Amino acid sequence: MSFTLPFPHRHLLGIAPLAAHEILFLLDEAERWVALNRAAAVKHDDSLAGLTQINAFFENSTRTLLSFEIAGKRLGADVVNMAVAQSSVKKGETLIDTAVTLDAMHADMLVIRHQASGAVQLIADKVDCPVLNAGDGQHEHPTQALLDALTIRRRKGRFEGLVVAICGDIMHSRVARSDIIALQKLGAHVRIVGPSTLIPPHIEALGVEVFHDLDKAISGADVVMMLRLQTERMAGGFIPSLREYHALFGLTVEKLKLAADDVLVMHPGPLNRGVEIDSAVADDLKYSAITEQVEMGVAMRMACLDVLTRQRRGVKGWA
Amino acid sequence: MSFTLPFPHRHLLGIAPLAAHEILFLLDEAERWVALNRAAAVKHDDSLAGLTQINAFFENSTRTLLSFEIAGKRLGADVVNMAVAQSSVKKGETLIDTAVTLDAMHADMLVIRHQASGAVQLIADKVDCPVLNAGDGQHEHPTQALLDALTIRRRKGRFEGLVVAICGDIMHSRVARSDIIALQKLGAHVRIVGPSTLIPPHIEALGVEVFHDLDKAISGADVVMMLRLQTERMAGGFIPSLREYHALFGLTVEKLKLAADDVLVMHPGPLNRGVEIDSAVADDLKYSAITEQVEMGVAMRMACLDVLTRQRRGVKGWA
Amino acid sequence: MSFTLPFPHRHLLGIAPLAAHEILFLLDEAERWVALNRAAAVKHDDSLAGLTQINAFFENSTRTLLSFEIAGKRLGADVVNMAVAQSSVKKGETLIDTAVTLDAMHADMLVIRHQASGAVQLIADKVDCPVLNAGDGQHEHPTQALLDALTIRRRKGRFEGLVVAICGDIMHSRVARSDIIALQKLGAHVRIVGPSTLIPPHIEALGVEVFHDLDKAISGADVVMMLRLQTERMAGGFIPSLREYHALFGLTVEKLKLAADDVLVMHPGPLNRGVEIDSAVADDLKYSAITEQVEMGVAMRMACLDVLTRQRRGVKGWA
Repeated sequence: MSFTLPFPHRHLLGIAPLAAHEILFLLDEAERWVALNRAAAVKHDDSLAGLTQINAFFENSTRTLLSFEIAGKRLGADVVNMAVAQSSVKKGETLIDTAVTLDAMHADMLVIRHQASGAVQLIADKVDCPVLNAGDGQHEHPTQALLDALTIRRRKGRFEGLVVAICGDIMHSRVARSDIIALQKLGAHVRIVGPSTLIPPHIEALGVEVFHDLDKAISGADVVMMLRLQTERMAGGFIPSLREYHALFGLTVEKLKLAADDVLVMHPGPLNRGVEIDSAVADDLKYSAITEQVEMGVAMRMACLDVLTRQRRGVKGWA
Repeated sequence: MSFTLPFPHRHLLGIAPLAAHEILFLLDEAERWVALNRAAAVKHDDSLAGLTQINAFFENSTRTLLSFEIAGKRLGADVVNMAVAQSSVKKGETLIDTAVTLDAMHADMLVIRHQASGAVQLIADKVDCPVLNAGDGQHEHPTQALLDALTIRRRKGRFEGLVVAICGDIMHSRVARSDIIALQKLGAHVRIVGPSTLIPPHIEALGVEVFHDLDKAISGADVVMMLRLQTERMAGGFIPSLREYHALFGLTVEKLKLAADDVLVMHPGPLNRGVEIDSAVADDLKYSAITEQVEMGVAMRMACLDVLTRQRRGVKGWA
Repeated sequence: MSFTLPFPHRHLLGIAPLAAHEILFLLDEAERWVALNRAAAVKHDDSLAGLTQINAFFENSTRTLLSFEIAGKRLGADVVNMAVAQSSVKKGETLIDTAVTLDAMHADMLVIRHQASGAVQLIADKVDCPVLNAGDGQHEHPTQALLDALTIRRRKGRFEGLVVAICGDIMHSRVARSDIIALQKLGAHVRIVGPSTLIPPHIEALGVEVFHDLDKAISGADVVMMLRLQTERMAGGFIPSLREYHALFGLTVEKLKLAADDVLVMHPGPLNRGVEIDSAVADDLKYSAITEQVEMGVAMRMACLDVLTRQRRGVKGWA
């Protein structure tokens, strides 16, 4: 593989292995799919016609699966979802055996979500085709970070010098992790804020600024990214109650006034309205880019599927 | 939207908003899909090629989902099913957020089934694309009423003056509701019959004739529509036992003799054989149109998907 | 139907009704799909374009469903999976009613898996389209036997005179049953081995050689087929413990030395590593054809779908 390719990676396992110019290349590629998806009716291309995409989601997801499935189908691929609930995994099959099985069926793209950090890498090591990480444990969720970056670029026109506050359960969030890495590579200044029990120790080493007070964290911020509160964390005792969480870390209209005048509010969804974000904020189209994030998700995934298969499709300049 | 269009509605949420000539227009449209579906092999058309159809069934269903999925695929659409069992709904997402998310993915058609009456309307209000109600609570199930009307028209050649008896749990049945509305608009005379606990009060106001005795209700009837007994109603105490239900309201060969000689027997399926209908009746091809109803279902749904997307596809005369 | 057709059967319900030359015809047909599937990118054909394939799996399966779904999509069919978990079956619908319903939707191919022996035959008797048995109870799993035969032929070049040892729970295994029938028709010599509680009485009548000692059974064997231990059989008291099962009937590197030098090791998957087969055996590419079996599965199913629909598609010489 020539390293003069604009995107020389075989897989998309995380943002960490990517250079800034490679991230920007993917964002550029996504733009044409945004345009296609906004077409009045025919929103379909045959770039991936004849290729087989297998979505294997070992952890439940609706949005991300739907987004990848629509992306593949709009590009003309033969898309199949592996029903994990009724899968061989239940019969005690190892993850590697599952991977080898999918590979033997000559998949051209594997989209994997797994509850264990590193599981997607393990699969990628064993197969012949590109693997796209749709979220693995507390590790990475690269397409989420890419769609977030795409949304920011479309609304702000730049990354350099932007102050982005990421708020919530940073410790357990692969979205936060991928976003932090992507935004820093792209030149934004990242602040994180959340209950001290939900901030990983030594995270300052990543170059982020750590806050435990929401007001201070969003003060003057250009972008405020709220994370979904995984309410199942409650049981773990990380936070006292939803009510207290909201009082301390919920984004309200009042608090948002502390941010920049043209602040952008983001959330990966699904929303816990009244917990980490108030409806008055989420639904204010002046600030909220939440719906646009969903839209960008499909386009971004189309770009990733397209770019990662160019070599095997013999696309000029890639083969 | 010009009101000279033969079908000027954006959505198909129920039969109630439709004029008789609009219903008849949809039945006419379905006829060509009946012919296509009966083709020896290639039963596929590319009318909806490049469009994205999302089926979001919040309430379990096999037949209706399968019917809509086959309809969309035969018309060339990119069809995706939202797996609600593992959906964000479980994570506490509101219905409107789900709707907005599907819309942001640029669906061209949303097919929704929901356990709550009015839920589909709520979604339709929030999205840019046509919404088809695949059954909402105890409200409406319009494609069922349309396929029933199509079946009747093909077998009887008319609606005017037909006596149609609808038998069973009228109170909780969206099928009954949509059928009553459709048949009355089309000029049929509708009788309803069932245990008094399962007949809504004041339903005579709709213009139907109410019976509590099956013999009287089907006496001389041209069409007998049996409703599926939702056996879960038993727990509610609406009916004493399956055995008594069958004795009083089950359709047998003996009772059917009271109807017109060329009576048509219908049932929306799945059948509770030996409860609301005897096998000897259900399987008698001279009377029973039950299998034909299933066939008409696919054609009818193809017609609805086609007609509702004509405007966005820029079909001549519709855009 | 002319009996000069190379494959004159309407359905594929089992291996038992097939003549050796018909099995060989299907293997020959599969070869070109093997080649297509190995193509760099476009692995798609439009032979089944416009046809509707319904996969109705009443018993959970991932691999076989995925294999049939990929096979149909690669051939251009409109493929839909019936979600049995949420199906009318749960509402008490009879199997025949389900079959008639699928038929009324004008399926062109039905792929059925069912926990009851004979259920697929029952469906085939009621429908107008070809039915493919994807495994029924303890009866047959014909596509597994065909893909096994294809794998053996590609690696050994012949069947005549081959000694094939099938090891494990013969009694409950439809894979074993179909493999035994296929291999005997093709001229191989079949040995079976397993705990005496898991060998059907009087099976010698089928012409197989019965062993209760693994060493003797695999001694000099050209092919060793290990069956998956259905661990749920444990409860039934058929075997004492996994540990003892492994000690007596697990395939180890040591035991494999008793077989022919160029022995082929096979397993229908998913593997219970360390129970019926050791990883050192399963992963040794010199002997193990386990991954190749998965690959052959897709090609074999493409061949079956193609051949069984030739008549309805009016393929020259078949219509």
